[in-house]
Amino acid sequence: MALIVQKYGGTSVGNIERIQNVANKVAKYVDEGHQVVVAVSAMSGETNRLMAMAHEVQARPSRRELDVLLTTGEQVTIALLSMALQQKGYDAVSYTGWQVPIMTNAVHFKARIEDIDAEKLHSQLNKGKVVVVAGFQGVTMEGDITTLGRGGSDTTAVALAAALKADECQIYTDVDGVYTTDPRVVPEAKRLDYITYDEMLEMASLGAKVLQIRSVEFASKYNVPLRVLSSLQDGGGTLIVSEEAMKELVMEKPLISGIAFSRDEAKVMMLGVPDKPGVAYQILGPISDANIEIDMIIQNQGVDGTTDFTFTIPRGDFDMALDIMKATAATLGAREVISDKSIVKVSMVGIGMKSHSGIASRMFKTLADNNINIQMIGTTEIKISVVIDEVHLDTAVKALHAAFELDK
Amino acid sequence: MALIVQKYGGTSVGNIERIQNVANKVAKYVDEGHQVVVAVSAMSGETNRLMAMAHEVQARPSRRELDVLLTTGEQVTIALLSMALQQKGYDAVSYTGWQVPIMTNAVHFKARIEDIDAEKLHSQLNKGKVVVVAGFQGVTMEGDITTLGRGGSDTTAVALAAALKADECQIYTDVDGVYTTDPRVVPEAKRLDYITYDEMLEMASLGAKVLQIRSVEFASKYNVPLRVLSSLQDGGGTLIVSEEAMKELVMEKPLISGIAFSRDEAKVMMLGVPDKPGVAYQILGPISDANIEIDMIIQNQGVDGTTDFTFTIPRGDFDMALDIMKATAATLGAREVISDKSIVKVSMVGIGMKSHSGIASRMFKTLADNNINIQMIGTTEIKISVVIDEVHLDTAVKALHAAFELDK
Repeated sequence: MALIVQKYGGTSVGNIERIQNVANKVAKYVDEGHQVVVAVSAMSGETNRLMAMAHEVQARPSRRELDVLLTTGEQVTIALLSMALQQKGYDAVSYTGWQVPIMTNAVHFKARIEDIDAEKLHSQLNKGKVVVVAGFQGVTMEGDITTLGRGGSDTTAVALAAALKADECQIYTDVDGVYTTDPRVVPEAKRLDYITYDEMLEMASLGAKVLQIRSVEFASKYNVPLRVLSSLQDGGGTLIVSEEAMKELVMEKPLISGIAFSRDEAKVMMLGVPDKPGVAYQILGPISDANIEIDMIIQNQGVDGTTDFTFTIPRGDFDMALDIMKATAATLGAREVISDKSIVKVSMVGIGMKSHSGIASRMFKTLADNNINIQMIGTTEIKISVVIDEVHLDTAVKALHAAFELDK
Repeated sequence: MALIVQKYGGTSVGNIERIQNVANKVAKYVDEGHQVVVAVSAMSGETNRLMAMAHEVQARPSRRELDVLLTTGEQVTIALLSMALQQKGYDAVSYTGWQVPIMTNAVHFKARIEDIDAEKLHSQLNKGKVVVVAGFQGVTMEGDITTLGRGGSDTTAVALAAALKADECQIYTDVDGVYTTDPRVVPEAKRLDYITYDEMLEMASLGAKVLQIRSVEFASKYNVPLRVLSSLQDGGGTLIVSEEAMKELVMEKPLISGIAFSRDEAKVMMLGVPDKPGVAYQILGPISDANIEIDMIIQNQGVDGTTDFTFTIPRGDFDMALDIMKATAATLGAREVISDKSIVKVSMVGIGMKSHSGIASRMFKTLADNNINIQMIGTTEIKISVVIDEVHLDTAVKALHAAFELDK
């Protein structure tokens, strides 16, 4: 007998029939003798409906009241799912965030979980009940309702699993696991049976939008085994674990787990900047102040006492960043600002990289063999990223996938 | 400066525009320097929508989960109304039932309020805020969500007014007050400026469905001045107070406040019942056991050692009651069972009746002058009811209204 926390998103509970399907899935685990806690989102479309009403009433809706409004979404789902389980003959009981309670800080709309009291839930599980908890929501010390922000239901599930010391946290989604790369680009892409938290974080942040980054961080911090699997088809999905656990699961881990890529990239360069201490801050400060997230940064020192600055940002912020950079260039007396919106980032991710050299050179050679020019390079312990022209994206990913034998 | 509790029902908050209208009404009182607490219902249609989903999922929905589900309705309204007030520049804060908290017993779907902690609300009012509270809902000692049953939002408002020691509780509805009788029957019917709790209870239970009986009982118990007024048009409405307060408000109270009537009546008679001790229980017991509410009861002792039994019930229970009575008649050896579905009850209500004789005879004379036969008579301290054939309803009410000069 294991204690399993399951999470079903808005699409999985999008109508009555789907809620009944979720009840069937839950029932299967109960029948196998497991204790099950289910965290659910609002029915798909519900959050948008409520948000539209809020915006109709108030130009910039109060975040406290928005949290009161939006949390009704999951409250509806927990009641209906509990009823569906009861209708099938399973004893189920629902809990809102405040009923658990899931304590958070007081940052409305983006609250962070601070503590979960698992006592009530354990007591219900021990009575043989399925416990259905509202995802995405919590309560402050003062008794105000909060929401956890985007992807909050994943975080709820992982936090519940941590608090309950669950054996596994299962995130049901519309894909059946984490793949070596996007199967739409490389049809030979393979589902990974296992991946480490760190690899998953690099994959997730690079565009493999299977799981919310925060929930993976949370799982990593509390060492909760996290499984991504499909709510529509059967299968073991992908299990996300610590590096230590991974060593026990897999004899020889491949060097590379997967290839992630992001099309949401743009590049801005400031050339011929008089090279003085503090110049990096003078250039990047105004960009940060405008809440634009900077990803890769490169500085090349020239021979004439000037320097060249290059960085990448999300495409949506391109126009704003360009305006800011032109103003900064004038102030600093830089030679010119050039930019490029048609770039992409391709990254190879794998914990095997730590102990094996030669990954980078093999990556660069593969790209060179395919006549793909590398514009920027960035690395972390378990990742190498390159920026290339977007026309080469498919070729690059396919070539790298084959070169590193990820389809084997 | 007064402390006012206002209650707006589902129709008054039925869409965004109406919620904004409610915000305007509330703002008017705040501008006059009053402290205002607002209790609101779910937007009209919402409760039915949620209930339909529940019934789709579970044949007989769990009452605990139904309460979790339905309370989302008012939670949406409090958030939207608070936002609407803020948009108009008024500081507003919302509270669900559990946030106040409004403590109830654990009878899901029909819970009774046991205690309200007014501290938080007073503190917010003293900060100059409008407090918006979800009607119809509460929370148990164990932290389970409850609902108060039909008309629960009225009860919430009155209970809040009692706990806050408010100067007045205003119930906004789709009529502009309590009338001497139904204006659809007697166009000359007049709105009453004042009425006592007891009179209102007699009027309400007799079909003047302006206020829920429970909320009037509650107001009476805690001596909360209760005002019924229109959410659509301006006007002072009708103020419902204690008999003592009434004496101070009105120099000379008219004998009769109003004429109530009910079409939802049916009559069953068992004739020739052998008259033995316990026979009343033998006849009425099975009716009560079937959860049929018995209203008026008459027993006429015959000369031949038998007795005749007559009672009235709601029309919807007629067929069931008749079947039960026929079975009972066979057991008891009664002569026959006869019945009549085409009856109505007309009642004159007024605290003036207590100290003035002659009301009954004037009522009977008026009916006789109009050739209306009285089938049954029942009285309380402040009410005389007669059962008549339904064809005479309009004539009777009009004649009595004129005879007692209620149009003056």
